[in-house]
Amino acid sequence: MPAAESPLLRAARRQPTDFTPVWLMRQAGRYLPEYRAMRERFGFLELCRNPDAAAAVTLEPVDRLGVDAAILFADILLIVEPMGVGLEFARGAGPVVRRPVRSPADVRRLVPVDPLEATPFVFDTVRIVRRALAGRVPLIGFAGAPFTVASYLIEGGASREYLETKSLMHREPAAWHELMDVLVDVTAKYLNGQIAAGAQAVQLFDSWVGALGPDDYREFVLPHSRALVRALTPGVPVIHFGTGTASLLPLMKGAGGDVIGLDWRVDLDEAWARLGSDVAVQGNLDPAALLARPEHFRVRVRAILDRAGGRPGHIFNLGHGVLPQTPVDHVIALVDMVHDMSKR
Amino acid sequence: MPAAESPLLRAARRQPTDFTPVWLMRQAGRYLPEYRAMRERFGFLELCRNPDAAAAVTLEPVDRLGVDAAILFADILLIVEPMGVGLEFARGAGPVVRRPVRSPADVRRLVPVDPLEATPFVFDTVRIVRRALAGRVPLIGFAGAPFTVASYLIEGGASREYLETKSLMHREPAAWHELMDVLVDVTAKYLNGQIAAGAQAVQLFDSWVGALGPDDYREFVLPHSRALVRALTPGVPVIHFGTGTASLLPLMKGAGGDVIGLDWRVDLDEAWARLGSDVAVQGNLDPAALLARPEHFRVRVRAILDRAGGRPGHIFNLGHGVLPQTPVDHVIALVDMVHDMSKR
Repeated sequence: MPAAESPLLRAARRQPTDFTPVWLMRQAGRYLPEYRAMRERFGFLELCRNPDAAAAVTLEPVDRLGVDAAILFADILLIVEPMGVGLEFARGAGPVVRRPVRSPADVRRLVPVDPLEATPFVFDTVRIVRRALAGRVPLIGFAGAPFTVASYLIEGGASREYLETKSLMHREPAAWHELMDVLVDVTAKYLNGQIAAGAQAVQLFDSWVGALGPDDYREFVLPHSRALVRALTPGVPVIHFGTGTASLLPLMKGAGGDVIGLDWRVDLDEAWARLGSDVAVQGNLDPAALLARPEHFRVRVRAILDRAGGRPGHIFNLGHGVLPQTPVDHVIALVDMVHDMSKR
Repeated sequence: MPAAESPLLRAARRQPTDFTPVWLMRQAGRYLPEYRAMRERFGFLELCRNPDAAAAVTLEPVDRLGVDAAILFADILLIVEPMGVGLEFARGAGPVVRRPVRSPADVRRLVPVDPLEATPFVFDTVRIVRRALAGRVPLIGFAGAPFTVASYLIEGGASREYLETKSLMHREPAAWHELMDVLVDVTAKYLNGQIAAGAQAVQLFDSWVGALGPDDYREFVLPHSRALVRALTPGVPVIHFGTGTASLLPLMKGAGGDVIGLDWRVDLDEAWARLGSDVAVQGNLDPAALLARPEHFRVRVRAILDRAGGRPGHIFNLGHGVLPQTPVDHVIALVDMVHDMSKR
C-alpha cells in the first residue's frame, strides 16, 4: 500500500477512510512482555542508542496489536542528553537532570547540539523500521515540544506543579525565551532529520503544557511552538498533543499541527467543535479505562466513535500513554473494537 | 456590618459590591511564619483538634492580609479519620491512609460516623471564630467533595493518576456508589453542623476531580455531589471548587453551587460565559504567579479583573491554595491590588 493511501495518513489529512485508524501512545512499552524482556538486556538509553534493538521494539506492537501506525521507540529527552545537563535514566525512577537549568547563566552554559551528529542512532532506527515495515503501516516520528522539554531541564525531572518552570518564566522572561529558542532550533533539526530518514508523520509531545493557564501559554509557549511547526519539512502531517489542555486547544491549533491530540478530559465532539473542522483530531480514551475488562471500556470506545460521528479526520488513540499495568489482551481487544465498530 | 452586607456574601449572591471581595485558599498556611510557629507546638491533627489554636490560625490572616473572609482551619480528611482506615498525617509527607479502601469488602468495613459526635472540635472552632470576628468578615466552612475524599481513601494518599480510584469505579461500580453514598451522608451532616455553629458560606473542595473525563464525572460523581448540595441547609452560599475542571465546569454547576471555583487553567470570561450568568464565579490567579514580584503578577491580576468586567458575582481568589514558598508581602500586595484595582 502506498503511504499516501494508509488510513492513518488519510485521516491526518481529513480524507475519508474505510474505518477509523488507531495507534496508541506507548504501544511499545512496559505493558508488553517482549519490551520488558528487552529491558532485561539493555538499559533505557542503551536501548535507544541501539538501532536494531530500538527498531525491534518499534515493530513489535505493529504485528502484535494490529495498529495502523508504528511510532519510533525513543525518548523526548534524547536531544538534551548531549547538552551537558547530566541527564540520567535511573531504573524505575524516570529521567533525572543532575544540573537543572534555573538561571540565565544556566541557559548560556547549555552545550550547542546538532542532532544529526549527536543522535545518529535515532535516524538509523527510523531507516531500519521503514525498511522492515515495507509500507504496511506508516511510521510516526516524534519529539518533545519546547515547553515540555524545558520543564524537565528546569525541574530536574518530572514534576507535579512546575513551580521552577513558572518561576523562571515569570522572573527571568529573557532567559526563558532564550532557552525556548535553543530548544526550537534543536528540535526542528531533530524532527526534520527523522523525516529525511523516513518518518511519514511526526507527533509533538507537549505532554505537561496543561499546567499553564491560557495567558502563560500565549506569552511563553505559543510563539515558540509555532516557530517549531513552521520550521518542519512541509507535507508531513504534524500531530500536536498535550494533556490537561481543555482550554488551550484553540491556542495549540494556532501554534500549528494538522492533527490536535486530545486527552480524555474533554468530550471529543465538543473539543472538535471548538477547534473547527479544518483540523483533524486524535484521541481520546482514558488509559485507565483499559485496566478494567473490555466489557467495561466498550461503552467508552463506542461513545468516542459516536462523538467523532464517522467524519473524516479522526485518529483513535488513548488520551495519554498505555499504562504499564495494562493487560496486553485488553489492548488487543481495544484495537479490534475500534476497527470493528468504525467500519463504514 | 451585618453579614448579609459583607462584600463576599453579596458577591456569592451576585449582588453588586463596592469592590471585588478577595480571600485565598490556604490563606492560613505554611507561608505564614505565625502558622509555622504554631506547628512547632502542635502536630497537624492536634492543631485541628484544639479549637482555641485552630481559631487563632483561622483568624491570623484576616488582620494580616485584609482579606474579605475567614476560612475555617481544618482538613478535608478529618471526617474520615474516625472511619477506621488508619489515617495519619506524617510530618512533611501529607496524609497517609494505612488501610486503603479498594474492594466491596473494604467499603462495608468502614465505621459509620456521626460528625457531630466525632468532630465536635470543628464546630467549637467555628463558634470561637464567629465570636472573635464579631461580624468583621464572614466565616467560610468547608469539606472535601465525595470524589476527592474517596480518592484519598482508595489511593491511600495523594496521587498523580488516580488509577486505583478509576479501577474501583470501573470494575466495582456498585461498591463505588456505596462508598460515595456513605461520604455524601457524612459530609452533609458535617457541613450542616458547621453552618449550625455559625459558618456563613461553605466551600466544597473537589480538588482532584479534574483527573476524570466528562463521562466518568456524569456517571460516577455528579449524582453524588448533587445529592450532597441538595442536603445542605438552604440559604447558605455554596462554593463548588475543583482544579483541572475546564471541561467539567457546566457539569459541576449542574451538580450545584451558588459559586463555581475556577482554577488558573481557564480564561475567567470564557469559563463564566460557558457557565451562564445565573451563577457566581471565584478565582483564578495561578498560585505560582505569587512567587515572582508584584510587578510581574500585577498584569495577571489586572487581566482577571478585566475579564470579570466588574459584573456582580466575582470573588477573587487563587486557582488553588497559596504555595508554602510564597513571600508573605506578595500575598499582602495581591490583596491590596485586588481592592485598589476593583474599586467602582
